[in-house]
Amino acid sequence: MAGTNGDENVKVALIQMSVSDDPDANLERALKLIDESARKGAQIVCLPELFRSRYFCQSEDADNFSLAETIPGKTTEMLSKTAKRNGVVLIAGIFEKRTRGLYHNSAVVIDADGSLLGTYRKMHIPDDPHFYEKFYFTPGDTGFKVYATKYGKIGVLICWDQWYPEAARIATLMGAQIIFYPTAIGSLPGEEKSAEGMRSAWETVQRGHGIANGVFIASVNRVGKEGTLDFWGSSFVSGPFGEVVAKAGATRDEIVMARCNLHEIDVVRHEWPFLRDRRIDAYKGISSRFIDEKD
Amino acid sequence: MAGTNGDENVKVALIQMSVSDDPDANLERALKLIDESARKGAQIVCLPELFRSRYFCQSEDADNFSLAETIPGKTTEMLSKTAKRNGVVLIAGIFEKRTRGLYHNSAVVIDADGSLLGTYRKMHIPDDPHFYEKFYFTPGDTGFKVYATKYGKIGVLICWDQWYPEAARIATLMGAQIIFYPTAIGSLPGEEKSAEGMRSAWETVQRGHGIANGVFIASVNRVGKEGTLDFWGSSFVSGPFGEVVAKAGATRDEIVMARCNLHEIDVVRHEWPFLRDRRIDAYKGISSRFIDEKD
Repeated sequence: MAGTNGDENVKVALIQMSVSDDPDANLERALKLIDESARKGAQIVCLPELFRSRYFCQSEDADNFSLAETIPGKTTEMLSKTAKRNGVVLIAGIFEKRTRGLYHNSAVVIDADGSLLGTYRKMHIPDDPHFYEKFYFTPGDTGFKVYATKYGKIGVLICWDQWYPEAARIATLMGAQIIFYPTAIGSLPGEEKSAEGMRSAWETVQRGHGIANGVFIASVNRVGKEGTLDFWGSSFVSGPFGEVVAKAGATRDEIVMARCNLHEIDVVRHEWPFLRDRRIDAYKGISSRFIDEKD
Repeated sequence: MAGTNGDENVKVALIQMSVSDDPDANLERALKLIDESARKGAQIVCLPELFRSRYFCQSEDADNFSLAETIPGKTTEMLSKTAKRNGVVLIAGIFEKRTRGLYHNSAVVIDADGSLLGTYRKMHIPDDPHFYEKFYFTPGDTGFKVYATKYGKIGVLICWDQWYPEAARIATLMGAQIIFYPTAIGSLPGEEKSAEGMRSAWETVQRGHGIANGVFIASVNRVGKEGTLDFWGSSFVSGPFGEVVAKAGATRDEIVMARCNLHEIDVVRHEWPFLRDRRIDAYKGISSRFIDEKD
């Protein structure tokens, strides 16, 4: 863990990558990009959601369940070796087979010594045209999670989770200092709102979580056209004041490197002490589906 | 109430104003600006937080309690007449004397027929150098509120509330379609983060609430230098997709006019159905102060 004298730098790398139709080639490439990130000084490296395969949720096809794997399994073994060799913390999205007929959209966290710290199972599952995730993934049943890694306590949430302020808030209350969002988001041709408007909303809502909670946000998306979907990249890291500190483009493979000084969280929370004034006596409505009018 | 055929326009006016040291002159001026907003077609008009007086919370001085007034009282009577005469809904920030020695930072909602629909008492009370609100205001004890006005169901929150995603979420779950934030926010000389960075964070977190909830946001701030504080204006309205639809500058008195088509809320929520997928079984941590590690 870094010192507490005002310099608590953590170097984060987000691997924004395109994904081929060969899961083994994708894994091999991801491992090389982790090596490259480590050479550049990264201490925590995050891969996108479901990085081993094309985004298969564009159709409902039971054959795609063959892409799933157990945790631990081949992917986590390879990631563990790579984490240990480089001394980096890894976060990676995995299509998890928990048992026969029970699958999750998961992310593993591997510590810098190669040990598997845990598995987060995506809590909010979308289902929209070309994002038929409810067919494949059972919503997570183990709640929100944070992980005490060698380089700081981090939260891990996945894609659709990023639209939910509750998820970021709970991760913060559990002690997360950086919240990672492995993501696969893109646009369809002819959508009502432009891809640019969507990208902007996507970034804004996450930066908003960062501001409301005084935490770093690190969000990594894939790029490239797959079937009908155009994944828009734009992976970014924002600070506890909401400022974007590093950002990728919309189309190319890139490693986004960012230095996160965790001490800034103290500075920002002292200036704007939101956590001090929360009205925890008055939030129980959050657990309602809707608060219907009384007659 | 407007129709449901895709055209459910509501015209909103935010009165961004500077405030003199004469409460009666401020009220008179506010009433004129409401008339002017109505002439421009406004249906819902919102005044800033504590609009009748200078921002007295820059020091802790018991003499300032003499600025408080009852609800109903002179200000609400004058506002009611103006609302009725113009057929507009009004939202206005009032320093409320609830009884001797018990004061709130409140906002009243007056319907287009002049009737007082209710009083919201600010739930989150800040206390920072030159914002000594905890000296003056007891935190609201009546929870979050929405109001079914002639022109739509609205939520009303006040200033510091705007940093809390819980408040915007609960207002949404209670049916708010537009959330109004009467505000008094500004910067001090020599602050660590620039006024521009703060304004940006302030706008971003609120637009984020709008996106996460699929609601319109209408936030109105005062302008001008008062004592040490420089109030930065920048009042704005954003849509349910987070896009800024109208915005004032940082220094001048302005009436911000915006057309809010409430039908857009359906459109946006159909495209990104966040409310459908909330994990209300998993949010109970929100009611914790902090979720301490178990040993």
